Amino acid sequence: MPQARPVLIFYSARQNPLAGRQAGRILPPNEHFQKYQTITGAFGMKSETEYVWFNTRRPREYINITDKVEEVVGRSGIREGMALVSAMHITAGVYVNDAESGIIQDIDEWAEKLAPSGRDYHHHQTGEDNGDAHLKSLLIHHQVIVPITEGRLDLGPWQQIYYAEFDGQRRKRLIIKAIGE
Amino acid sequence: MPQARPVLIFYSARQNPLAGRQAGRILPPNEHFQKYQTITGAFGMKSETEYVWFNTRRPREYINITDKVEEVVGRSGIREGMALVSAMHITAGVYVNDAESGIIQDIDEWAEKLAPSGRDYHHHQTGEDNGDAHLKSLLIHHQVIVPITEGRLDLGPWQQIYYAEFDGQRRKRLIIKAIGE
Amino acid sequence: MPQARPVLIFYSARQNPLAGRQAGRILPPNEHFQKYQTITGAFGMKSETEYVWFNTRRPREYINITDKVEEVVGRSGIREGMALVSAMHITAGVYVNDAESGIIQDIDEWAEKLAPSGRDYHHHQTGEDNGDAHLKSLLIHHQVIVPITEGRLDLGPWQQIYYAEFDGQRRKRLIIKAIGE
Repeated sequence: MPQARPVLIFYSARQNPLAGRQAGRILPPNEHFQKYQTITGAFGMKSETEYVWFNTRRPREYINITDKVEEVVGRSGIREGMALVSAMHITAGVYVNDAESGIIQDIDEWAEKLAPSGRDYHHHQTGEDNGDAHLKSLLIHHQVIVPITEGRLDLGPWQQIYYAEFDGQRRKRLIIKAIGE
Repeated sequence: MPQARPVLIFYSARQNPLAGRQAGRILPPNEHFQKYQTITGAFGMKSETEYVWFNTRRPREYINITDKVEEVVGRSGIREGMALVSAMHITAGVYVNDAESGIIQDIDEWAEKLAPSGRDYHHHQTGEDNGDAHLKSLLIHHQVIVPITEGRLDLGPWQQIYYAEFDGQRRKRLIIKAIGE
Repeated sequence: MPQARPVLIFYSARQNPLAGRQAGRILPPNEHFQKYQTITGAFGMKSETEYVWFNTRRPREYINITDKVEEVVGRSGIREGMALVSAMHITAGVYVNDAESGIIQDIDEWAEKLAPSGRDYHHHQTGEDNGDAHLKSLLIHHQVIVPITEGRLDLGPWQQIYYAEFDGQRRKRLIIKAIGE
């Protein structure tokens, strides 16, 4: 005896195999197409991806990208899920903290103290001079995950999402990817 | 020729348009409602969200929240997925490490050494005095993602989830959000 | 009046209740089984989990696991989603950075400088001697999330995924878990 398996019925408005005598009462296409939207929203999975480019004026710069992430989440139609915000280069970071100029300066000085520039990093034997930016990226971490609840970024009162550029003045990329239902 | 599109049939027990002569054999409502539960569990997406409040007695404190996360995961009914555990304040952290009092003390002293309190941070010009707690939050990171496998937290033998308070003695919040199937 | 609820029809090829007179035209089983695959792929959620074991020759070692993660993602059939790559021990890390031997040496020396070995950590009162490895795990972070787009790891040009062993020469485990649609 074969196991029961789920089956979903496919058809288009014109191809509806139940159209006609039975379908008149049972499956008016418009009504069911509309309901399909509903049910997809109810338990399907959605995703939305956007790439954001930066080209900062200074070598190190901290850019508030909260509104951009919120925009992607809004467009996704996701009610419950998570958004990954992740630098696509290895000399940049993404973090969540305060949108206050003093703390941003503190973060910059702190990263410079723990992962100083101007040293003879082994990496510089390749001709590069940005070894410190790689270490700063590891220190700050290159990504965050932001919860999405009831269709919005679910952030605490002071939480803002920052792109941290540690080796700028050239085109660099970030990915925002939301998944959920 | 229009493209084939998926259609799902909606009805309630009483409204079942197939009830009667055909439905007697084809779609006994109870049987199918039960199966709907099954299929939702089989490939639908689920989510579960809980906020946890802390108000620590000491300024810095480390609280094992593994059982709480396990409880939320259990309640979610999720078999395969991920749980985000994320501080909602910018002066707290979340990490995974050992539930051993010595290492907790080591972590506290290490965070204090790399992001010391009592300094003249720029942030303090706003009237705040917790600049070090912001930096400790960045050092430890404010979130982890825990895998969910076969309905349980999928942690290694010594992995425990900790809430790290760096500026306590007031109400602070954490989000636990599980998504999966 | 009860609310409308979604219903999905379950059957197997042999049990198909619509087989026979009506089903001949409406629901030829093979056709619909095939379509079920399609629709599951279209909005269902998938997951794939793999555990990877390491037993490094040296106490500290950095292993490029990008191909392994790509393999798991490929096998999952996920088109859009995320892969969690997470150490299951508390003395190892996972990070994304450059596959260049100089920067790997820089990372090793930097982690050793900020979380030095050979100190009298409180943790060592338990008989352990790997306190520094716990702190290095926190510094580097024990996990990353990698975006999956159009069925592939969505990494930037130089981004490679590394397992960072800080207390090796014994069997340690890593989890790769992909979820998505």
